[in-house]
This record gives sequence, C-alpha cells and structure tokens, in this order.
Amino acid sequence: MKEVKSIKVKEEMKVKELVSEMSGMGFGAGKIAKASSILKEMVTDKECKIFLGVAGAMVPAGMKQVIIDLINKSEVFVTTGANLTHDLIESLGDHHYIMDKPVSDEELNKQGLDRIYNVLMKNSVYEKLEQFFERNWEKLKTCTNIKELLWKIGELCPGNGILKTCSDKQIPIFCPALADSGIGLMIWGRLASGKQISIDAFFDMKEIIDIAWTSKKNGVIYIGGGTPKNFIQQSLQFAKGANYGIQITTDRQEPGGSSGAPLVEGISWGKMKNDGKFVDVFCDATIAMPLILASIK
Amino acid sequence: MKEVKSIKVKEEMKVKELVSEMSGMGFGAGKIAKASSILKEMVTDKECKIFLGVAGAMVPAGMKQVIIDLINKSEVFVTTGANLTHDLIESLGDHHYIMDKPVSDEELNKQGLDRIYNVLMKNSVYEKLEQFFERNWEKLKTCTNIKELLWKIGELCPGNGILKTCSDKQIPIFCPALADSGIGLMIWGRLASGKQISIDAFFDMKEIIDIAWTSKKNGVIYIGGGTPKNFIQQSLQFAKGANYGIQITTDRQEPGGSSGAPLVEGISWGKMKNDGKFVDVFCDATIAMPLILASIK
Amino acid sequence: MKEVKSIKVKEEMKVKELVSEMSGMGFGAGKIAKASSILKEMVTDKECKIFLGVAGAMVPAGMKQVIIDLINKSEVFVTTGANLTHDLIESLGDHHYIMDKPVSDEELNKQGLDRIYNVLMKNSVYEKLEQFFERNWEKLKTCTNIKELLWKIGELCPGNGILKTCSDKQIPIFCPALADSGIGLMIWGRLASGKQISIDAFFDMKEIIDIAWTSKKNGVIYIGGGTPKNFIQQSLQFAKGANYGIQITTDRQEPGGSSGAPLVEGISWGKMKNDGKFVDVFCDATIAMPLILASIK
Amino acid sequence: MKEVKSIKVKEEMKVKELVSEMSGMGFGAGKIAKASSILKEMVTDKECKIFLGVAGAMVPAGMKQVIIDLINKSEVFVTTGANLTHDLIESLGDHHYIMDKPVSDEELNKQGLDRIYNVLMKNSVYEKLEQFFERNWEKLKTCTNIKELLWKIGELCPGNGILKTCSDKQIPIFCPALADSGIGLMIWGRLASGKQISIDAFFDMKEIIDIAWTSKKNGVIYIGGGTPKNFIQQSLQFAKGANYGIQITTDRQEPGGSSGAPLVEGISWGKMKNDGKFVDVFCDATIAMPLILASIK
Repeated sequence: MKEVKSIKVKEEMKVKELVSEMSGMGFGAGKIAKASSILKEMVTDKECKIFLGVAGAMVPAGMKQVIIDLINKSEVFVTTGANLTHDLIESLGDHHYIMDKPVSDEELNKQGLDRIYNVLMKNSVYEKLEQFFERNWEKLKTCTNIKELLWKIGELCPGNGILKTCSDKQIPIFCPALADSGIGLMIWGRLASGKQISIDAFFDMKEIIDIAWTSKKNGVIYIGGGTPKNFIQQSLQFAKGANYGIQITTDRQEPGGSSGAPLVEGISWGKMKNDGKFVDVFCDATIAMPLILASIK
Repeated sequence: MKEVKSIKVKEEMKVKELVSEMSGMGFGAGKIAKASSILKEMVTDKECKIFLGVAGAMVPAGMKQVIIDLINKSEVFVTTGANLTHDLIESLGDHHYIMDKPVSDEELNKQGLDRIYNVLMKNSVYEKLEQFFERNWEKLKTCTNIKELLWKIGELCPGNGILKTCSDKQIPIFCPALADSGIGLMIWGRLASGKQISIDAFFDMKEIIDIAWTSKKNGVIYIGGGTPKNFIQQSLQFAKGANYGIQITTDRQEPGGSSGAPLVEGISWGKMKNDGKFVDVFCDATIAMPLILASIK
Repeated sequence: MKEVKSIKVKEEMKVKELVSEMSGMGFGAGKIAKASSILKEMVTDKECKIFLGVAGAMVPAGMKQVIIDLINKSEVFVTTGANLTHDLIESLGDHHYIMDKPVSDEELNKQGLDRIYNVLMKNSVYEKLEQFFERNWEKLKTCTNIKELLWKIGELCPGNGILKTCSDKQIPIFCPALADSGIGLMIWGRLASGKQISIDAFFDMKEIIDIAWTSKKNGVIYIGGGTPKNFIQQSLQFAKGANYGIQITTDRQEPGGSSGAPLVEGISWGKMKNDGKFVDVFCDATIAMPLILASIK
Repeated sequence: MKEVKSIKVKEEMKVKELVSEMSGMGFGAGKIAKASSILKEMVTDKECKIFLGVAGAMVPAGMKQVIIDLINKSEVFVTTGANLTHDLIESLGDHHYIMDKPVSDEELNKQGLDRIYNVLMKNSVYEKLEQFFERNWEKLKTCTNIKELLWKIGELCPGNGILKTCSDKQIPIFCPALADSGIGLMIWGRLASGKQISIDAFFDMKEIIDIAWTSKKNGVIYIGGGTPKNFIQQSLQFAKGANYGIQITTDRQEPGGSSGAPLVEGISWGKMKNDGKFVDVFCDATIAMPLILASIK
C-alpha cells in the first residue's frame, strides 16, 4: 500500500510536475496521474494500436487541437457526426462563441443563435455548409462508404481541422451514425432534391475489425462514451481485448448505458484484457484531457 | 405561485394517486407529475405525432414491455442497435439475468457471462443470433435501408418483442447507428464471408423528416438521449419544433452532450417550440418511465 | 441467477403491484424493489431499531409527511437544521411554493423570495420565527442540549409537523449542526441581544451511542447523506454495524464524500454488518421514498 | 460574444499557460479559467475577506497542503469534523493509503482497514487519537467553544497540518458539526468516562457573523458544499452578500441540497451580490483545486 502524499503546488509549476504530484493522491487526482502514465505507456509501446473514440460536443468547446494531437497518435478515430460537422463549420470559416451571461433560449432563437450548454453557434453556418456540399457534390457523390466520404470531405475543405488531418494522413475515421448530424442533413438535402449518392451503412465495420484483429496490442482512449466507444468496443472483441484504456466521462454507471460503464465491465465481454491497464476518469473532458495530454508532452 | 403540498402516502394506493399527490411537490417528484400530465396530453391530442427515442440498455433491464406500450402510442421509434439486438435475443428465446451479488468481471468472463451494470447475458446468445441471420439471409439480403431491414427482422423473428411490434404495426423504426451493435456484427459476419447486402446509410432520413414536416403538432419522449434523441431533434427543425416533450436522463448538462442537454436548449435551435410544454426528469428511466406510464393507464 | 422479467404496467395499478413488478428488473427499478423489501423487513423485525437520517431540503419539497411516517417507524431521527427550520416555518403557518417558470434570482431577491432549486419561500417567514423564539424564550433558555431544545420547540409550536411529532412521541431527534440553520440564527439573535442559553455541543452523542450499543439489531434509512448519515454511521460502530440499510442519494462516490459513499463501504469500518441487507438507490428521494413507502403500506 | 479558441497544448507547458489557454474554451475548461481569474482577483483585493468552506474527505485524498495554502489566503475557515480528524491523525504520525486494486470491504475489515472510496486508513489510528486526548485533557477541558477547542488541539499537536496552521496564525476555524467526527468521539469518550467539558454549540456564530458584518467585501471558496458552505452562506446574509465566489462540487442541483445549488441561487437569499463574480465548477475538487491554485501561484 502506497502512502497518500499531500500535493504541493509550486510557483511557475509545469503541468508535468502538477500531474506528477497528483500520482501520490487518491480520488480523481490520482486517476488523472494514472491516465497520464497509461497514455504515455500506450503511446510509446510500438506494438500498440490506439483506437480513439470521441463523443460530446468537443469541437464547439475548443477541443479541436487536442483531438488532432490525439489522432496523430492513433490508428483509428471514431466520433459523432456532430463533432465532424462542427469541425467542418470551423474549417469553412465560421466560429463558435462563449455565452458570457444567461440569455433565454427564446431570445437566442430570435437572434439566430444555437446553444450547446454555454457555447453558441450562428444558425447561418448552414449556408456555408450548403454551399460546400453543392460546390463539391460531383466529387462527393462517388463515395460509397462513410470513411471514404469523410476523407473526401477532408480533402476538399480548407484549413487544418480534424477531417483534413485524417484525410491528409490517411487515418481511418469512422462515424457509424453520420446520418445523425449536420453533414447527414446535407446529404439528405441532395437526396431530397433528386441527386444520387449511395453510402453503405455496414462497409466500414470490416476495416475497423480487421485493424483490431491484426494488431498485437490495442489501446483505447474514450471521451464521453456513446456510439464511438461502443463501436470500438465491439471491434475489440475480435482482438481479444484492449491492453490499455483511458475513459473520461461524467455519466453514471447505474442507468446501464455504455457511456457510464466502467472499462472493467469490458473484461466480462472480452473487450478488455483481464491484465490490461485501465482507468476511468470521472471528469469533464475539457478539463481532464488537456491536463493529461500536457503532462506527457 | 402554487403552495407546496406535503405528499400523503396511503394504504393500497394506486400509482395514479401517488403521482397525483406528487403534483403538489417540488424537485423530482413534481417533475414526475408534470411528465405524467404532458404525456397524457400528447397522447390524447389527435393532431400530435409522437417521436419516441430510447437509448441505454433498456431491454436488458426489463423495460421491453414499457417501450412497446410507448411505441403503440407513437408515430416514430428511434433507438440504438444495442436495444434492438437485446430485443432480438429475447425473441429468439434467450434471457437476461440479474446479478445478485458482486462477481469479478474476470470470473464472469470465464463463465461466459457479459455484464451490463447489474444485468448479465450469456455470451452464447450469439449462436442463436448467428443461426437466425444464416437461416433468413435470403430474405434479409434484399433490404436496402435500415428501416426495411429492421421490419424484415421483426417479421421473421418469433415472439412479440419490439422489432415484431414495429413490423406488425408498420411503425417506422430508425436506428442510424445500427452498424454499432450485435445486429451490425451479424451483417458484418455475412459480408466477411462473401455474402452481399447493400443498406443505405442516409435513406431513412427522408422518411423521418417527412413525418416531422407534415405533422400539425409533434411530441417527443426521450429516454437517455444519445443518437436516438439527436436524430429526432434534427428532424424536428423541419417541423418548426416540438409542442410537447418529456426527457428522462441522468446525464449532466455541463459536459455539453446531447444526452444531458435540457429540452429548453432545443428552443434556441428551433427544435422545440417556445410555447411548448416540456419537462426534464432527472431519474433512472427504469424507475421513472414505469411510474409515469402507470399513472396515465 | 434470476431471469430479468419485463415489467408490465397495468390500468389502475397499485403502487404495491408496480414495485412488485420492479423486483424482476435490473438497474434502478430492481433497487427500488429491493429497498421496499428491506424496509418491510426492518420495520417488521421486532429486534431492530431504526435510525433515520435525512439531509437535503426535503420539507420544502413536500416530503414532510413521508418523513413523519418514517419517524413513526424509527427509534432515532437525525436531520439537518435546515429541514427542522422549514418544518417549524410551516408549523407557524407559512408555506413553500413551487416556482412554475424561470425567474432570475435578482428578481426573486427584489420580491423577497428565497429559492431552493424550484421551490420558493417568502423571506418574511423569519418574522414569525423571530416572534416564536421571542415569545417562548423563557421556556427555551433552560434547555441544555440539542435534543432537549428541539423537543421543547416541538412542544411549543402548533400544528403536527416533524418537531411536534418527535416531541409528542418522545422520539430522540439529533441535529449536530443545529447552529448551521435558521433555528441557529434565532438562537444567535437572542445571544447577540444579551440573552443567555447554554447548549452543549457533544451531550447528545451519549444517547445515540447508547441506543446503538444496547440494540440487538439496527437498521438505517439514509436520505441524502451529509451530517445525518455520518452521525448515525459513527454511532453504529459501537453496535457492531447495521443489519439493514437503505440509502437514497444522487451524489457520486468518486469525490469521496460520505453522501455518495455506497453502504457497503461501511463494512470496512464496522458500521455495516458483512451479512447485512443493504441497497443504494441512485434516485431523487422525492421520487424514490414515496414510491418505496407506498409499496409497503 | 467571444470566439471559442481551440486549446493548444505545448511541451513543458506551465499550469499557468494551460489555464490561460482554457480561458478561450467553453464547458468545464472555461470555468476552470474563470475560477482562476476570480480567485486571483479576490486574493489581491485588499478590501476582501475570504471565507473558505471545505467538505468531503479532502485530507485523506492528499489535499492537506492545498487547503493550508488556501487557509493562508483566508479570513475564516469552515470544515467538517472528518477533515479535521484526518488532519490530526496525520499530525500524530499516521497515514492514509491508496488502494491499488479492489479488495472486498469484508476483507478490509478483517485487516483493520477503513475505506474512503479508494483511500484506506488503518483502524489503529484511533489509538494515537485516544492517547492524544488522554494526555492533553487537562489543557483541552477548559475550552468553552468549538473554535477555542480546535485552536487548542492545533497548539498541542505536532507537525504543521491544518489545525496547527489555524492555531499558529490565529485563523478562525469553525466546525458546527464537530460532534459528528472522530474528534467528537474522543470528546464523547472522555464524557462517557465521567470527565467534564462544556462546549457551547452556538457561541461561534457570533464571531463568523461579526466578521461578515464588518467586512467591506467578501469572497467565498467552497469545496463540496455541505455544512461548511451553508454555515458561511447564512452568515453572509448579514454582509449583504459575497462579491466573489468559487464553488467546486460534483453534486446535482435537482435534489435541492445546498451542496449542489449553484452560487447564483444565493442571490435570491441575499447571500451573493447580484453584481458579484461567481463560478460553479463541476469537477472533482482534487483535480480542479490544485489546477486553479497552481495557475495563480
């Protein structure tokens, strides 16, 4: 049994030092330190392929660059359509805004502002989205699966966002529920106006399962659970489970959803190895992930 | 301002009476009563089409019949692939089990038991799933969209579960992330063995948006948020927003995800009407939903 | 392993029947049923003394009568000064109110309304409190410990609230942090104006520990944790732990506070018996407690 | 409206820089940055008196030195008896331990280990506590109020913990529910063996209210809510409300308890100034508080 050591906060302290001090603590701080150590280990383990799953409105909150940093360490990226839509919106030149003081949703609606907790977005962003899809439709319409479509969008859009990074570096990006997003609405808009595109709903499964199947070791990084976590988890069954795992979520386990389930539950399913190194961090990911990432840079 | 009335619990009390007493209370109890009253109103409003969105492992917890009761009052049902897989598993004759005492996930894995919080499932259920898809492949492989595939599965499976109910009554059932589920794995298994099926990832959007577009009034019932909630919400933008809404979730709003976002946030997006009747119930849905439903039966 | 049985909700169902159906479920519903069964057992076990601990603003929410029902089954009642102050306020003829629609706290302050989540109280209630303490000071000032003071307040106040019930039935009522409440402020007001009273901060410990020490079996009912739970828990160490326990809380265990700690943690301390019957219900107590209580009436 | 800026995590980054980057973000990260800025302002505002309230098992988690750092910036410190008992235990030479892997509470009980989430303490610590109180009883027994008793304990105990710091620097330390703690049990033990001490339960109220009453400006720092928060809040009514406020809690507001109530609710009561600067940080305090503190050092 290791003695708890009271954390000492010093002037001009580096994040690395702060997290190192946290390694002597219990509760959440100790888990941040453990996550830092596991992340470092999985990133430097050359046999390990990293599966990154990101749910929640991370891009609107300002986590885009952190996600890109993590993607650059990963073999596979799975996220929600919402995150990708917000990424594309920023790549096309629009922004998200911090809501400084409470304004009623009725008033926001009148001003054409969409709210995501304390972040706002102009409803007019959809205009540039529409133009982008209209302008590039000929190049997009030949795609036949979700990953191909997302890479193509990344190729065609300006800037250096998430889609662009995945496209440039050919990092597989999966998004099983892409229909459930602004990008989905753009596709629907073309279909509704008589245009044609045919994207297979199941095709991408082959690739993610193949990657899991052929890797020697696997690591997972989950922000927020949801479909991204579950899609990775089900693939890991074919890899005999993950060796490393970090999960950052504020959801509860009692209601039984995947987002709140502790990583250890995955051992019963064979999605996590019994002797793997895991940690569940109960924390807002916008706080925990930059802290953890900065500690290993 | 209405005076708080202290709830009085009586012998042999009916659920209806209990929830009626709760209408005089603050905090969660008052919200249960408000949800009961809104549900009653949307169910009896003949102009209102109800969109039911269910996330979380509701079938394994024993909520199947409650969901079917709600489906029977709804125009559209959206859920996760997990719920549908668990429904199919039960229809094929397998069961879920309550974990009475703590057993390590390592031990559960050895015994071939998969854990979902305090519910267990034999890993062997996948055998009957495999057989079902193998046996019925010729009939399934001609489907071209997710709703059609799900209705077909419902038609072919025995019992009287969720898929069967939707199929029998031709209630549209949408599941944008179906690839992310045991059913998805069954499809992948056929594809991996060289069989052919081509399911469009975006096709269903047309139907759900059309339903929203053409309805006079809309009501939403959300259990747990996730993709089901978001997929309905984005369609409601085309209906000028919902008139009625009940959301039951234990997720927090601070991390910015859709599952924890209060319904009122939807007003800013035009997904909820400014003068609509909404309530967010912060409660485990396995407690809240049966209570609310029993109160209006 | 017991099969999960899908709950069936029927017309005109009794609460008893609903909770009985919940006993076949996983997640929160199963825990409600378990709590019902444990409560029934501890109430009918003649050797068992029940310690009831109530934190949180339960009286303002409308839980007064439910608490009185539970007190009538209990040997000891521990609560916060806030609950007792709100009880006294109601006994003196004032009320709490449900906030129907959002009003800013600035506006509420101007209107002289104090907010407790969605419940309001007129700030003017303090006038009657002041008068009560002024009028009865001669009778109160001779009290020397907290229980005696609370019983005396109960004796002197009108109505049939919590304090009155405890006083009438001579049920020991403990409130270690009474200074931290409106009643505390009333005592402070007299002291500040030169009046005298001398209440011992530790005296009551003897009585609660003696009750725990001399009982054959103990049961605990905790709503919300806090000081009431902890004060009972520390006394139970002298009773070799509780045999029965129900805890209803929405707090998390990760930050390490007593309010979120599962009952099973008490086994390590010897506050809970290893073979005791316990359940932690993750639910708003205003929903869970009336439901559980109605199921055993 | 301020644009969200994507956080950039750099090599060898200082905590100060990380939190500065967070100021451009939404959700929790933005609140950490806001808390940092408010803390800096209240610490440097010479007219401001800081009231620090700490609940939860912060000392066992390794937060002792962070709390001492904050006490050194504060005018008043209010905490739970548990935190003070754990502080005294460490001052007397015992330790807390990190639980590396899951062990059943039954097994821990056999090994004489008490569990606080993932932190352990030897049950034998009570021996040194007993000896301390036995040895120093003649000096302690003359105390007549809680603050005096706590300062005296601090004076008599070795080391440089929380109690010692408050005693040395004569920083008022209040603990309304001291009876509810290991220190309380030590007092009870003496009383039970026939020794005498008479500590007034309400005396300290005068001092904290006087401090609030006479200050020009007030700032509050709340970790975890509970009695410490409420005891400060009720005193602030007499100061016309706080000008600055930081609250770190993971409790929910829906169940109506003080620990989960947002600071803004205090405006209705007159405990917070309408034009004050406040922030609620939803985060495990062992993560958030060191991060915030390091950012202003």
